[in-house]
Amino acid sequence: MKNKVKNIVVLGSTGSIGQQTLDIVRIFRDTLQVTGLACGNNTKLLLQQAREFKPLFAFCSAALKLPKGTAPVKMEEMAVHPDVDMVIVATTGKAGLKPAVAALRAGKTVAIANKEILVMAGALLKQLAARHGGTILPIDSEHSAVWQCLQGEGSGVSRLLLTASGGPFIGWPVKKLRRVTAAQALNHPTWKMGKKVTVDSATLFNKGLEVIEAHWLFGLPYKKIEVIIHRQSIIHSMVEFRDGSIKAQLSIPDMHLPIQYALFYPQRMPNPEIKAMDFSGRHNLTFEPVNYADYPCLKLALEAARLGDTYPAVLCAADETAVDLFLNNSIAFTEIATIIEKTLHLHRPVSNPGIEDIVRSDRWACDTALKQARKDN
Amino acid sequence: MKNKVKNIVVLGSTGSIGQQTLDIVRIFRDTLQVTGLACGNNTKLLLQQAREFKPLFAFCSAALKLPKGTAPVKMEEMAVHPDVDMVIVATTGKAGLKPAVAALRAGKTVAIANKEILVMAGALLKQLAARHGGTILPIDSEHSAVWQCLQGEGSGVSRLLLTASGGPFIGWPVKKLRRVTAAQALNHPTWKMGKKVTVDSATLFNKGLEVIEAHWLFGLPYKKIEVIIHRQSIIHSMVEFRDGSIKAQLSIPDMHLPIQYALFYPQRMPNPEIKAMDFSGRHNLTFEPVNYADYPCLKLALEAARLGDTYPAVLCAADETAVDLFLNNSIAFTEIATIIEKTLHLHRPVSNPGIEDIVRSDRWACDTALKQARKDN
Repeated sequence: MKNKVKNIVVLGSTGSIGQQTLDIVRIFRDTLQVTGLACGNNTKLLLQQAREFKPLFAFCSAALKLPKGTAPVKMEEMAVHPDVDMVIVATTGKAGLKPAVAALRAGKTVAIANKEILVMAGALLKQLAARHGGTILPIDSEHSAVWQCLQGEGSGVSRLLLTASGGPFIGWPVKKLRRVTAAQALNHPTWKMGKKVTVDSATLFNKGLEVIEAHWLFGLPYKKIEVIIHRQSIIHSMVEFRDGSIKAQLSIPDMHLPIQYALFYPQRMPNPEIKAMDFSGRHNLTFEPVNYADYPCLKLALEAARLGDTYPAVLCAADETAVDLFLNNSIAFTEIATIIEKTLHLHRPVSNPGIEDIVRSDRWACDTALKQARKDN
Repeated sequence: MKNKVKNIVVLGSTGSIGQQTLDIVRIFRDTLQVTGLACGNNTKLLLQQAREFKPLFAFCSAALKLPKGTAPVKMEEMAVHPDVDMVIVATTGKAGLKPAVAALRAGKTVAIANKEILVMAGALLKQLAARHGGTILPIDSEHSAVWQCLQGEGSGVSRLLLTASGGPFIGWPVKKLRRVTAAQALNHPTWKMGKKVTVDSATLFNKGLEVIEAHWLFGLPYKKIEVIIHRQSIIHSMVEFRDGSIKAQLSIPDMHLPIQYALFYPQRMPNPEIKAMDFSGRHNLTFEPVNYADYPCLKLALEAARLGDTYPAVLCAADETAVDLFLNNSIAFTEIATIIEKTLHLHRPVSNPGIEDIVRSDRWACDTALKQARKDN
């Protein structure tokens, strides 16, 4: 049986997930066709990608001259083009929010690698998908693991167990954490990722976002979502069912796998570039509880999750600002949490926020976080 | 929604799996009804069970006076009674073979805990199930794990990874193994089971049977079925798909779970008696390759599997005889393998065996194994 060609738009095509998505397109040229590419400011790579994949559309925040046949078109526009079957949202921060909203309104399938947009606007995105026949698929390794474990199962889920590597500073005392450099934070023990998400993995803020993301993706209350430390990043997450049975999904840490799973779902495709687990040697998989006192950013994320409304949007914006400041050596590693906490504390939430409320809260939180940082430094 | 009452027959009701099956009936009195019970010679317990569950039929190899309302009926007869929805085959050795054949001929669902019957007559049982609309379900924890991991998946399986605890003697030198006593062999590190299966777990013979069982249950060639040592018996087995993704099923070691899964499939039922995994503490799950030189019984089982025909039936019978002799202190632990090897070596196989060929090979192998043992001692 020949597969129908799937037309995809890759938002954030020059980032880590975007590039890996295009790796998969290279393997499956007969079935995947790139209709649109978009990036922030890596014009050089975008141009290269446009030449290679000849998309109808491309977008870049910075100015650039596109090759013939590729039209400069905004993300929201390319995402809703009638030819498009799937939109991969692999932007960072809030950049993908509006295109995702547009795509879901147009009834598209949206595969999300960019956790922030589900965290900021989970309720809204779910409503839009339900109303317009759109579909939200996860790309994050943890959520892909949960999704895979849920295949063929009914509603009897008792717990999700999201695994966290614990980051490079697990067990470090606060005194030592204060002196952590950007270079140290960017050296993740098990995954190679973009800068922001790598820092968020070191603070475990990322895991907080993933809890919120899982809440929206799988429709489960927060009390049924747990985080456990699994340093090896082999088991990507687990689902416990009401009979006490647990399913886990595992593989070597390679984002190509969850990306490909979303691209071809429900089919699984053989990909010679993805290495299988090697069981000819020894493996040691450990699980340990999270020591929440060591991870204030995770605690704050879970608090914002429980508060709901515009708090998660503020959480994301405050973290985005704080991480940026940390990467520019403007604040200490431990101040990321302080800034998020202060910003959340000052926020006046909006109930049942629409997209504009969310965008406004985001802007307010960026400003507020920046002010807090200036005040302290 | 109220569940329809399911009428079950429990063959081997006084054994470990049989008793645990009845534990589950006690929890789900509204939905599970015992129609028949059968045992070898534990008349006392069978009488107790008959009084408690008031089955229409009971069978015992030994003579006993059944309570009013329970008729003495052979296993083959109760298994095909029109009221019966599911037959649990939890006998040991070959005892359940003929009733399983009868049940599948009658189009029943047969849940198999007794690996030997699938090993001896896998091809035949599969043919009967296909021809008469019967269904074969696994109860073994490893096969239940595989079955659970296969839910909602297509045909893209690249490997089954059956986990083995390695038994109590992992890494022991042959010299020390020669002096192993029955009491030592019966002390399994992670599972509480019947005597025969506990000894088979110590030799890893059991894992060989499970490979053959998996081959028949899931229709996979032997080269796609691997055994790995996982000492903690938490991950009950794994399935690798062709995209490199692996699913594992895990739980505390408790046979109630796979029994219940088969009883209620595809539903998962909450059972307060089954403990959930506790992730508030630390866990360490290890995987290591099998050192086949340490496990001659496993090697022999895999050889018999590859030879096919009546070899697997001979394998089972020779092991049954040898384990019996070991438990009676007539032979050394290490002689179990020697006797199986000699018996296999002397066998003249029958191609495409029918049930009578299998029964004949079994009888021949028991006699031959016994003769080999006498010659050596």
